[in-house]
Amino acid sequence: MGAGGWPLDDRGVAYGDGLFETVLVRDGAPRLWEAHLARLARGCQVLGLPMPAEHRLAAPLIDAPPGLAVLKLMLTRGSGGRGYASPAAPAPRLRWQLSPFVPDTARWKAGVRVRHCRLRLGIQPVLAGLKHLNRLENVLARGEWADADIAEGLLCDSEDRLVEATCMNLFWQREGRLETPRLDRCGVAGTLRAVLLERLPIAEVDAAPGVLASAEAVWLGNSVQGLWPVARLDGAGGEAPQRWTIGAVHRRLQAVAHAPLGYPTRLDN
Amino acid sequence: MGAGGWPLDDRGVAYGDGLFETVLVRDGAPRLWEAHLARLARGCQVLGLPMPAEHRLAAPLIDAPPGLAVLKLMLTRGSGGRGYASPAAPAPRLRWQLSPFVPDTARWKAGVRVRHCRLRLGIQPVLAGLKHLNRLENVLARGEWADADIAEGLLCDSEDRLVEATCMNLFWQREGRLETPRLDRCGVAGTLRAVLLERLPIAEVDAAPGVLASAEAVWLGNSVQGLWPVARLDGAGGEAPQRWTIGAVHRRLQAVAHAPLGYPTRLDN
Repeated sequence: MGAGGWPLDDRGVAYGDGLFETVLVRDGAPRLWEAHLARLARGCQVLGLPMPAEHRLAAPLIDAPPGLAVLKLMLTRGSGGRGYASPAAPAPRLRWQLSPFVPDTARWKAGVRVRHCRLRLGIQPVLAGLKHLNRLENVLARGEWADADIAEGLLCDSEDRLVEATCMNLFWQREGRLETPRLDRCGVAGTLRAVLLERLPIAEVDAAPGVLASAEAVWLGNSVQGLWPVARLDGAGGEAPQRWTIGAVHRRLQAVAHAPLGYPTRLDN
Repeated sequence: MGAGGWPLDDRGVAYGDGLFETVLVRDGAPRLWEAHLARLARGCQVLGLPMPAEHRLAAPLIDAPPGLAVLKLMLTRGSGGRGYASPAAPAPRLRWQLSPFVPDTARWKAGVRVRHCRLRLGIQPVLAGLKHLNRLENVLARGEWADADIAEGLLCDSEDRLVEATCMNLFWQREGRLETPRLDRCGVAGTLRAVLLERLPIAEVDAAPGVLASAEAVWLGNSVQGLWPVARLDGAGGEAPQRWTIGAVHRRLQAVAHAPLGYPTRLDN
């Protein structure tokens, strides 16, 4: 924990008027730091908040434990204003939490089971891609299942296009090509996704959920957990689940994703 | 203010995982209390939160000043959980703020000037109508103008249907019929709106913003400010503003709206 709690009238709780980042930290050093700063800066621009100086964002790292931890940074517009209107001179508030972290290495190796969520994400291009504090859709989607065997739920938008999973981005290979959903209408543009798009020829596409039926391999990933192969996707309407064998193609993508996180890059079967 | 601030890890700020109500209070007595309780209960059902006992929600009223005040109640899922997943045994958190209030009586009489917002509301039927804590769309829409002469901004959804104003509901009369937008896809179903729908033959309709061009009268209202006649609507693309003369029809609707709020019901020109 860091720097106390939130005042009663903080706009973060009143309206979700702010942004956050969840950063993997290894022995006090943040991973994908540039990508996190870039996304936070983009969010600040859209919300009209001043981007905090890097030394302020990095200050909590001095308290990081040895080994792995997660730094959660939260930035709100602070207190005040008349209703939704921003205060004339906003005083943004930065808070953080630093927690020890242990990744789920079994999921790297054996892959995960996922499902389709019933909830559809609303289309809001202005906020698309940002890691803002309005996350009720994710909370409700994650509340659709309690079975601990199911690692994630896939989300479509209100026009039935694939977007992401509740807290991870989605990737697949189809006819030898790597693809991921475009995130210009909704969804969170993950920092691991940004790194993968830089380093691999991954096309950003509009795709209906049916596209996964013809996928040769499917992955989920984020900058804290790394990359999970999808081994099983439960049918949306009670159909038989779809299954994938974890193979060389999964391992190649994991190698690229895990290198910048400091996670194992050789996960042979 | 009441009952301290928020812990660092409250899900209200982390995800906007909660609800609020803003209640007009006159000499310690809440107005439209049943309607506020009903909306909060509906929100609790959708979010899977236990509805707080009425005596807990009413407790802050003991500190209400004489005259007019606004009670803001905020209910969150509390702390904890693994990411978006709800904690196994959630301990919801209730906080409140009680502030003196002075309504803008000039707006009741002379009406207000409004504009169209550029931002389009995302369509999310699951959350439609609720007063939840994910209000970044409202904040961004309200941030579109700074001119103090403009009282409100009208919002359409992503399919260009009229929904509401940033913090008020919208009503109009067309060919002698009273109408208001349906709120089953997005928007906040105001408690004053609920009372007006009960007491007057107001049809809930799907309407493009162009409908206002043929409206004989337009109003905005909420349970704190009462009912504002719209005297002028600025054109969306630089066209000439549309103007309405405040007349008997405006006063009749105000009389119905203001009675349960304890506001003046005779506002003759």
